[in-house]
Amino acid sequence: MRVIIIGGVAGGMSAATRLRRLDEHAEIIVVEQGDYVSFANCGLPYYVGGVITERESLLLQTPESLRARFALDVRTGSEAVAIDRDAHTVTIRDVRTGTVVDEPYDHVVLATGAASRDVFEQMPGAPVVSTLRTIDDVDRITDALAGLSEPGRAVVVGGGFIGIEAVENLVRRGLAVTLVQHGPHPLSPLDVEMAALVVDELQAHGVDLRLRASVESLDAEGVHLDDGTAVAADIVIDARGVRPAASLAVAAGLATGPTGGIAVDGVQRTSDPRIFAVGDGVEKVDAVSAEPTLVTMAGLANRHGRTAADAIAAAAGLLDADPADALPALGTAIVGVFDLTVAMTGWSEKRLRDAGRAHRVIHAHPSDHAGYYPGAERLTMKLLVEPMTDLILGAQVIGRRGADKRIDVIATAMQAGLTASQLSRLELAYAPQFASAKDPVNMLGYIADNAATGLTHAIQWHELEAAVDDGATVLDVRSAGEHEAGAIPGSVNVSVDELRERLDELPEGELIVHCQVGQRGHTAVRLLRQHGRQARNLAGGYLTWQAGTRMLAADRSLEKESV
Amino acid sequence: MRVIIIGGVAGGMSAATRLRRLDEHAEIIVVEQGDYVSFANCGLPYYVGGVITERESLLLQTPESLRARFALDVRTGSEAVAIDRDAHTVTIRDVRTGTVVDEPYDHVVLATGAASRDVFEQMPGAPVVSTLRTIDDVDRITDALAGLSEPGRAVVVGGGFIGIEAVENLVRRGLAVTLVQHGPHPLSPLDVEMAALVVDELQAHGVDLRLRASVESLDAEGVHLDDGTAVAADIVIDARGVRPAASLAVAAGLATGPTGGIAVDGVQRTSDPRIFAVGDGVEKVDAVSAEPTLVTMAGLANRHGRTAADAIAAAAGLLDADPADALPALGTAIVGVFDLTVAMTGWSEKRLRDAGRAHRVIHAHPSDHAGYYPGAERLTMKLLVEPMTDLILGAQVIGRRGADKRIDVIATAMQAGLTASQLSRLELAYAPQFASAKDPVNMLGYIADNAATGLTHAIQWHELEAAVDDGATVLDVRSAGEHEAGAIPGSVNVSVDELRERLDELPEGELIVHCQVGQRGHTAVRLLRQHGRQARNLAGGYLTWQAGTRMLAADRSLEKESV
Repeated sequence: MRVIIIGGVAGGMSAATRLRRLDEHAEIIVVEQGDYVSFANCGLPYYVGGVITERESLLLQTPESLRARFALDVRTGSEAVAIDRDAHTVTIRDVRTGTVVDEPYDHVVLATGAASRDVFEQMPGAPVVSTLRTIDDVDRITDALAGLSEPGRAVVVGGGFIGIEAVENLVRRGLAVTLVQHGPHPLSPLDVEMAALVVDELQAHGVDLRLRASVESLDAEGVHLDDGTAVAADIVIDARGVRPAASLAVAAGLATGPTGGIAVDGVQRTSDPRIFAVGDGVEKVDAVSAEPTLVTMAGLANRHGRTAADAIAAAAGLLDADPADALPALGTAIVGVFDLTVAMTGWSEKRLRDAGRAHRVIHAHPSDHAGYYPGAERLTMKLLVEPMTDLILGAQVIGRRGADKRIDVIATAMQAGLTASQLSRLELAYAPQFASAKDPVNMLGYIADNAATGLTHAIQWHELEAAVDDGATVLDVRSAGEHEAGAIPGSVNVSVDELRERLDELPEGELIVHCQVGQRGHTAVRLLRQHGRQARNLAGGYLTWQAGTRMLAADRSLEKESV
Repeated sequence: MRVIIIGGVAGGMSAATRLRRLDEHAEIIVVEQGDYVSFANCGLPYYVGGVITERESLLLQTPESLRARFALDVRTGSEAVAIDRDAHTVTIRDVRTGTVVDEPYDHVVLATGAASRDVFEQMPGAPVVSTLRTIDDVDRITDALAGLSEPGRAVVVGGGFIGIEAVENLVRRGLAVTLVQHGPHPLSPLDVEMAALVVDELQAHGVDLRLRASVESLDAEGVHLDDGTAVAADIVIDARGVRPAASLAVAAGLATGPTGGIAVDGVQRTSDPRIFAVGDGVEKVDAVSAEPTLVTMAGLANRHGRTAADAIAAAAGLLDADPADALPALGTAIVGVFDLTVAMTGWSEKRLRDAGRAHRVIHAHPSDHAGYYPGAERLTMKLLVEPMTDLILGAQVIGRRGADKRIDVIATAMQAGLTASQLSRLELAYAPQFASAKDPVNMLGYIADNAATGLTHAIQWHELEAAVDDGATVLDVRSAGEHEAGAIPGSVNVSVDELRERLDELPEGELIVHCQVGQRGHTAVRLLRQHGRQARNLAGGYLTWQAGTRMLAADRSLEKESV
């Protein structure tokens, strides 16, 4: 059997090594356009920042090491320019010499990845421009940084995962950094009140944020934005979105899907049964909508590479059956933002609202571990739940410690089909330095259970204004000291601990109850409703309301300016 | 409605506060024998060690704060001495005055916890003796420590969770600490080759370990052990096992189970429908065996307290239906051992073997995060799998970082009924500082999948001797340098990277292949078997073999000594 794997990083290399373990006798050719295979693409920003100090540590494998251990025929500097599906050949061009050869195949694995949509052109006299996706990119960037005589100025365009990592690492290198983001906040998969924490963290580290802004042009002065301002820059990192690198597949007549990604079945088989495709170039099935989607994550690429190898081995009779179909993709993701960890899975509230999907929103701000043990840090958590089924639609977790753990537990629960209420029943590990007896994930489950059983009556921060307009009163059940330190305008303050004695003082009509994070508010709402009062609890309390409203106000002022 | 809750810590307090939120008008009396309610029992060792500096931070609530917020009638220093189930009264004795009152009830919640089996008697002239379970205990211990003129000597008896935490914190206080453990290693829920890491960590911190030893007597000289030795001590912490504090329930004629714990149904109802019981005094259902079991964990106590409140509210017509039945207990647990985190869930290999349950063993030693990102630490992981169903029976994870996350993900998967192979498909959050593209949990899943599909042929460290006796050769596929640094006696060394070229050199007969952790060994076994050789991979590689065999050797020498 002769298998040609096009693309030698995550998905391609996973397919190649798995296939070798399944078939010692197959001829396996790995074609890689660049000079490097199996490099640590997720580590590139940290090499720029000097966290990873050795360039060699980015190069996980070499053609030589892969030949020794896995008998792979790895050809770097080789571009697959065409696939002849009738002749069963791949045309491979030597990038240096231009020589072209046709290599026959029994199977092909396309692992061509994603590419930047349209990269800024490098103009003479203008700042150095680079994406941050390859070893060549980091060589270009570190060369440019080394050439700066004084701490330089950088502009990062695009506030997605790589953009944020670029910002952090350029700040770490001592540069003054501006982040230009098209949308209203960085990390667009987050909801706005969650993104507030990211904005705070970036600004606390001196990052100049330009929101709802786009780059119009680059010249010797720097970067010109569409709001008419210019930002001086020595280097510009283009971290705008990517699209599937599907041109080879398209030219070969393989089917693509509505997203532009290569269409595959559950075992990564394209419309041609001899050709498989994996990684960022391939369309996935979304776990929430069951629709085609693009998710560019290394974990999925690795897993699907292994699946493709299994399917090829099954086709060759080396395995009894095809591997199990790929699971729908959640899009679980995580990113460090200076001292903050930002993690998410599934859909956001905004995405659900835009799609017209019914959803319930849960906010919580528990400590990552027992408050009585030193070093506890607040987590900011959000859970999206399908009201009819109580199934989990998505989650966002932000904090200085323990956010990665909680998103992994929630993602596992989602994949297993647990309900939101069932999160309360997970038997998670507790000792005071690691968690609480009621883990933050359990807390989300308890709130979800209270919502599902009708014990909680919640209102969201963005619904408060309308409720007040309809005559509701905001009742702050925190202590007087907390209230004085910052309160919702027009709110009345009666501490939860005095509420039973002071029921007579409360104004008529509906009460929108809030505390700092939502927990005392829940106790107060239960009390008030049993005393015959109409009351709802402000989800996530003052913290969530405050984060959401100030982001909204800032965004409105940007919109005003642009009018 | 009048509800008497006996026991004012985790489970009892959880029941009381939940019940108040469900029923603003109920009369809720909390009876607590000690002087404190709702204290941080899991924090007590860390207060002894000075990690938690303020005694007040151990006292999470006071009778006053609970009256203000939840209108609870909290009676400390009050012992429930009898329950008259016909008269529906609880007899309560004031511990200070001896006064006795009969309080009528509609429902009772028993949250009496667990008690030490038999505490060493405090003899005049002998070291101070204390358990480490209450505020009074830590007051006694810290008083004793404060009275020592020089760094003192402590003996901790019992190497369970509290014993280990006591050891760590007494070392932190500067004491010379001896740990006396009845069994062959501390933390008996661990398998022996996993416990090797705990032994190393304890000894690296100067702890004097006395294994397979028991205390015979205490006197002015110190602690006399059954091996004839004596250990000088200023203080002795009795951290031996506990049993359910069920005497009140037994005296009232309530049913107990085969474990001695109070028998309850799925909503914590005892054999008397008006009386509920929660926490360490209560029997649970084991998740692996479906048999009655005892699991003394704060998380379960809190959860079941809430369930009991819900069931009482349902009985009173305040909720539409009984809450969902409690899930079977996994016994998820975690403990810090100096710089190590030790976490477990479900059953160990030893427990499965003793019960005659079929099981498959998986070992792995992946890094907690990407190796190319600084600070990666090795995790030592073990997974127990049911061969017929591929269901997860248990897991143990030890490491300096990220062990808590992995055990929580595995426990979630177990509770959701995922198979071991499905762990490979979990879409966990990856960025290089948090995980790997193939997370350690995914790695366990891949190994499990290879075992389930017959691609892996594994042998366990404790089976090696027999295989060699049967004529197998041990083949070390690590590099020559690794082999020289430490190898299995009699092993032949051919690096995996040279294996294809040197097949002719290999001895006849079965090959037991190993590398350092198991991964290269798997690649080598796949290669060898496809070249017609009989080969199995040593699970967990040299590391697991080395840990297991040296523990076994040490234990055998102890047994010899005692003969």
